[in-house]
This record gives sequence, structure tokens and C-alpha cells, in this order.
Amino acid sequence: MTGAVAMVELLRGGMVESCHRGHAAICDASGLVAAWGDPEALILPRSSCKMVQALPLVESGAADAAGLGSEHLALACASHQGAPLHVGKVAAWLDGLGLNEADLLCGVQPTRDRDERDRMIRAGEHACQLHNNCSGKHAGFLTLARHLHAGPDYVDPAHPVQRAVRATFEEATGRASPGFGIDGCSAPNFATTVAGLARAMAVFAAARPDAGDARSRAAGRLSEAMRRHPDLVAGEGRACTELMRAMEGRVAVKTGAEGVFVAFLPERGFGVALKIEDGATRAAEAAIAGLLVHLGALDPAHPAARKRMVGPILNWRGIETGAMRLAPGFA
Amino acid sequence: MTGAVAMVELLRGGMVESCHRGHAAICDASGLVAAWGDPEALILPRSSCKMVQALPLVESGAADAAGLGSEHLALACASHQGAPLHVGKVAAWLDGLGLNEADLLCGVQPTRDRDERDRMIRAGEHACQLHNNCSGKHAGFLTLARHLHAGPDYVDPAHPVQRAVRATFEEATGRASPGFGIDGCSAPNFATTVAGLARAMAVFAAARPDAGDARSRAAGRLSEAMRRHPDLVAGEGRACTELMRAMEGRVAVKTGAEGVFVAFLPERGFGVALKIEDGATRAAEAAIAGLLVHLGALDPAHPAARKRMVGPILNWRGIETGAMRLAPGFA
Repeated sequence: MTGAVAMVELLRGGMVESCHRGHAAICDASGLVAAWGDPEALILPRSSCKMVQALPLVESGAADAAGLGSEHLALACASHQGAPLHVGKVAAWLDGLGLNEADLLCGVQPTRDRDERDRMIRAGEHACQLHNNCSGKHAGFLTLARHLHAGPDYVDPAHPVQRAVRATFEEATGRASPGFGIDGCSAPNFATTVAGLARAMAVFAAARPDAGDARSRAAGRLSEAMRRHPDLVAGEGRACTELMRAMEGRVAVKTGAEGVFVAFLPERGFGVALKIEDGATRAAEAAIAGLLVHLGALDPAHPAARKRMVGPILNWRGIETGAMRLAPGFA
Repeated sequence: MTGAVAMVELLRGGMVESCHRGHAAICDASGLVAAWGDPEALILPRSSCKMVQALPLVESGAADAAGLGSEHLALACASHQGAPLHVGKVAAWLDGLGLNEADLLCGVQPTRDRDERDRMIRAGEHACQLHNNCSGKHAGFLTLARHLHAGPDYVDPAHPVQRAVRATFEEATGRASPGFGIDGCSAPNFATTVAGLARAMAVFAAARPDAGDARSRAAGRLSEAMRRHPDLVAGEGRACTELMRAMEGRVAVKTGAEGVFVAFLPERGFGVALKIEDGATRAAEAAIAGLLVHLGALDPAHPAARKRMVGPILNWRGIETGAMRLAPGFA
């Protein structure tokens, strides 16, 4: 990757201690509106594209056939933290399909909910695949696989579910995907450019649940589900949840591993995507908040915005030792 | 910071998913031997300079007056993980001084030892300042403060302990420090350049416990202590411990927060310092291993080297989804 620009700086003792560079793009329905760095940089969107991966679930009619509601759709788009709220709803979803935790192929991930972690340690309980942050996405894949009468290995790139995901992903991003990586949850994750990912987000920004075409209806339902259930998309204390709450349902945001973050703004028709070159989540969170402030969608004085964009950075005695800031010239 | 060069890349699906840039310098007693990026980049060394911060403890005679052995000196240079091994030895050290945990000013940090964490959760125990990764450094500060008949606020930049640390730091780095930040443990952390930090490491590389001058004797004793007790300098599973074990006592290495890593090679007289621009520990570990391989000090096939330089990156099902590598052109 070349041409990444400074986006986020960490200050300590009046000095810039660390600096994160990245690429960002804003698109609307007509194409690229603004960019920082190289909008044609090739990236793996990771979990930031879960709402794209969930489009075939809705568009195919599988979601309706299984009676899924907006909570299920939010979980299909989620990187949840394996809190009891998330685990319970995914377990019930699988139960409704006549399936269970053993049908998931996402792997076992420890809960990221601190209270639940401590409770499980005290109780001698072990995490299961339901705790995996992608278990809702995988429940969606299983729902689609059943609807397609396809086999159990739904993460195989040649499986009908993943073939549908790839085709939809390429249509939404407006370009062929040059390849894929295997994600942390074992599903293929298709590559695109930063601008391609922003274009897909613009599809969601323009979508309406009552639109004439099936793609727009599906994207509109997923968009509404994410914005209605910020607690299901991530969890307490997490950037996605807190930023969506701060914007009161007007904007959806979604994180992805290795420094990816996306947003879409239905009121404005904008899709946003960014990739921090070094993969740092702290910088991706600061940069997406900065872009949302830049677009007038987020109040920079809101605690959720300040937490990501400024800090403060506290040490083990609670002393403020530093702060973050957007790099001069970015957003 | 400008001029940082690509040092470490993460690969997934045959693509470069993320990339870390940085600065590095190698010095010997005569000065700069090699550099990548900008060796004059200003950095905060953070915990990577603990052996420099411990020089006044030994050089002043305070360590001998308190009867400290090589384990104490290793702990003074350590960023330990608060395992029972570390906590017990620091507690005994303080007890020998007639002090206790409440005299520390490093703050409470949870243990990073997984088994101990789980045991403490099950037992309902809470971490204390002894668990802080810097508690050995602070025990050293307290030892020196007592020797100097100085007051209890030993982290005040105007305190005799910190004045001694600053003077020694500037002599070892060969340049005035333009300022300091407050570290995670509340002690001042003096700024220098990457080359300045490498020069200080070259002082340690040239030092001998039986040398004629007090500085060299002190640095030589700290050098021996670090290389003799890799388990005390960090802990099981940690890069410092595993890399020093892999080099069988011939080389000392030390990590610092925000992507700093140093090494010194007494057999070769080399001091090494690097800073990853974005502050990533994973990249600092890979880059220092790469430089040690470059210098012929570390076998690239050793598991401790491969763990930091290659990975593999496994997902939640244990599937290999990616790998790290040194960026083309680095080391």
C-alpha cells in the first residue's frame, strides 16, 4: 500500500508519540465524493462488510421464510461481544431453525464482556461458538443455506451461500473482487478497494425498506436493523454501539479487524470507508469519528466522539498522560 | 515523524493486509553503524530504557548498600507480567527496605499472567501495585531515594532520583533530552532520538562488571542481570523472555510501550533501538527479531524468532489465515 496519509496522532508530554496513516473514501450514489490517501488501495473489509454479506439472506427471501425480525438482522451484521444478550439471541435463532451451536463454523472465541468473563471463570464455564463475535453472521449463513437446500459447509468459497455473497459483494462495490482471505471466523472475506467499500456503503445509504427493487429493500431493512439495535451490533462500551447511539439512529457504523471502519448516512446518501494502514482499531475509531464530524453527522463534543477522538489517555493512577487528535490536514 | 520506512507486513489471502513503518538505528561505541528510516526521529523510549533508569541505582552504591542481587537488578529493568514469581520477589525487596506496596507510586495494574488472573478472579482477590509491570523499577527508585535520604515522591521530575535519572540518560544517549512525558507508571520518561537510544544501548554493550569506571561497572552488572534472568525481565510467553532465552544469554532485549524495542550485544559491542511509528507491539517484536537475525545474533528458524517474524496467524478454529513478514528492503 502506498500513499497512506497521516490520520491520527497520539500525544504525550507535548510530543507526537505515535502516528497512524490510512486511506479513506466517501461515496454517494453517483460515485466518489471525497478521498484521503489512496481510495484505490486494495483492502480486506473484514467484519466491516457484514451487512453486505447479509444481503443475500434478506434478498433471497430466506430471512422472511425463517421469520427473522430486526434483532436477527442486526445480529447478522454484528461483531458482538459475546455478552449474555447476544449469546442468548443467537442460541434462540439457531433453535428456531432446528440447529444448535455445533452447526456453527465460526470457532470458539472467549466473551469480550468483562462481567460475563469473570462469571464464567468463577463458574468454571468455557466459551463456545455462540460467544464468537461472528455467531450472528454465521446464523444468517445457516439460515440462507437451509433456504437454498445447500450443505453444512457454508464457509466453503464454492458453497452456494458464499457464491451468493461474492456476487452481491461485487455488485455492491461495483467491481470484481480480485480474491479473498479467510477471516477470523473461517468465512471467505472478499477483497475490494477503499472506494469500492464506500460505494457499497452508499448502496445502503440510498436503500429504503419500501423500495421497488429487492436489493434496495434488503439493504434498507438491514440498515434499519443496525440503526435500531446498536446494542446488538457490538455491545456496551464499544465504538459501534456508542457512536450509533450518539447519532440517534441517523447513521450506521461498523468496525472491521485490522483497522477498517465504515459508515452510511441514509439522510445524506453518503457511504464512508476507511482503512488504517497498520491495522490499529484505536485509529480506525478515531478516524471514523473524525469523518462523521467532518460530515456534520456527529457532535465532536459528544462523550462518545471525544472518547474516540481525544481520549484522554490515562495511566495506572488515573493521571492524564496524553491524548489523541486527528492529524493536521485530515478531515 | 517523517521518513519512517516499511518494516513489517501482515499477509492474508496472498495480499498485504496491513503494514507497519518505523525507524531503527544500530550504534557501536564510535557512533551510528546502520539506520533505517530517520535515526534522528524524536521518541519516548517508554519501558525500553529501564536499564538506563536503573543505572543511578547501581552506580550510586545504593544497590550494594541495600544488598541487592542480580534478581533485583533484573526486576529493576523489567516490564514483568505480574506473575506470582515477580510479585513475590518485589514484595520481598520492599520488605527488606522496611517498605511495602503502599510506598509504590506506579498504580494498580491487573496481572497479565493468565493463570494468576483466573485464580484471583475465582478467589475474589484484587490486583495491587506489586502487579504493575513497573513495580521492580519503582522498587529500585525507592532504594535509591532512601540511599539519597530523599523524600517519598520519587516520581516528581524535580526529585533527586529523577534528576539523577535524567543526567544519566542524557550522558548515555549522548545528547540533551528535549523534554519528557509521564509514563504509564507515573514516572517521567525522557525523550531522545532513535539513534540516541541505540547509543545508550551501545554503552551497555560495551560495559563490563569489572571495568575501571563506575558507569561501565554499573551497566555491566545490569546487562548481566537481564541476560541471566530473562524470566524476570518479562515472563512466560513474552517476547523479551523468549528471545533472550533463544540467544542463550548473549544478547539482552527490552520492549517499550508504543512500539519501541531495544537490544544490546556485548559480544559485538552493538546497541540497537527501533520505534514503530504507529506504536504496534506486534511490529516492534517482529522488527527487533529481524534486526537480530540481520546481525547474526538470532537463528531465524528458532521458534521464538518465527513466532515474532512469521506467525502463523491462526483463526478461532486454528486455521492458518495469514502470516507476518519483514517488509521488502528492511533488515
